[in-house]
Amino acid sequence: MGAVVMHNVVSVDGFIADSKDQVGPLFDWYSNGDAEIGVNDKVSVSEVSAEYVRPMWAGIGAMVIGRHLFDITNGWEGSPPAGEHVVVVSHRLRPEGWHPEASYYFVDDVARAVAKARELAGDRTVAVAAGEVGGQALALGVVDEVAMDVVPVVFGSGKRYFGPVDAQHLLEDPHVVIQGDRVLHLRYKVRR
Amino acid sequence: MGAVVMHNVVSVDGFIADSKDQVGPLFDWYSNGDAEIGVNDKVSVSEVSAEYVRPMWAGIGAMVIGRHLFDITNGWEGSPPAGEHVVVVSHRLRPEGWHPEASYYFVDDVARAVAKARELAGDRTVAVAAGEVGGQALALGVVDEVAMDVVPVVFGSGKRYFGPVDAQHLLEDPHVVIQGDRVLHLRYKVRR
Repeated sequence: MGAVVMHNVVSVDGFIADSKDQVGPLFDWYSNGDAEIGVNDKVSVSEVSAEYVRPMWAGIGAMVIGRHLFDITNGWEGSPPAGEHVVVVSHRLRPEGWHPEASYYFVDDVARAVAKARELAGDRTVAVAAGEVGGQALALGVVDEVAMDVVPVVFGSGKRYFGPVDAQHLLEDPHVVIQGDRVLHLRYKVRR
Repeated sequence: MGAVVMHNVVSVDGFIADSKDQVGPLFDWYSNGDAEIGVNDKVSVSEVSAEYVRPMWAGIGAMVIGRHLFDITNGWEGSPPAGEHVVVVSHRLRPEGWHPEASYYFVDDVARAVAKARELAGDRTVAVAAGEVGGQALALGVVDEVAMDVVPVVFGSGKRYFGPVDAQHLLEDPHVVIQGDRVLHLRYKVRR
């Protein structure tokens, strides 16, 4: 089976957006270079970031996201930014008539959502959005790796990368430490 | 003048201790190697960490700390872990009879405390403890660099590296990215 990777861009103090969902300078590195990454033609990053991001995004089979992210993006209109399948953690059902062609599933429990995504992804990676859903998944012990694209900005407050986590979890030393332009790519395995 | 460097060991989610001041695994790297760093014989780190830490600690002339850290360490009994001078941000005065030989100063305002430390340090570095005091200093614009020794652990809650900071502050890309054993040394200049 593929790995379950919690992922997001994050400030040096652990925030993925401010309290109003604004990402401010966190996404600047997505457009500060000339290198394309293949899956999204609005993204054009530095070559060093592209070398890291390209295989990571290409390896994603399914994403797990929260209902909030689904709602604010309208589910990317049925075209996920990576992979072919999206599992939305939500107590509410799929909106009636919403992109019937899209491989989106609505599951009301984080553990079951991750299990469904693993089934859909097969050998490929399951990317779990950090924040509420990612934090719950980590606390449940179903996350294999934590990928943080750390942007050199202090946020001070906002929405936390680790969401509701309220206990200590050890990680391995990072097996990825790559310095891009306005982003430091880090990736840690969760210690078992 | 020397630089003013905010510094601490920190979890991947930005905490420097839990809510009861316990550092848990954050300090493991201080004793997981064979290399001494010269200023504190209880510290014995990996060689790669020692090469970074030795000149940094040797370059410190004065420290700025909060009253809370002073109280829980009893001011390191008058022997600061680095440098010769300590400025304590406190509304209360120096405890009567406490180590009269020690070069410790008690100042009730963060900006004045940093100014006093710069005067004492001369050309050497002023190290400002992260947390309440460091966060206030950053917000006041008197911090030149942010040094984070990032330990691969999620804390979930506790005392924040950036303390009371509640606004965005841009940093430069890190000019130090050094991977030790159970610690990633990062150092950023504050963008002006």
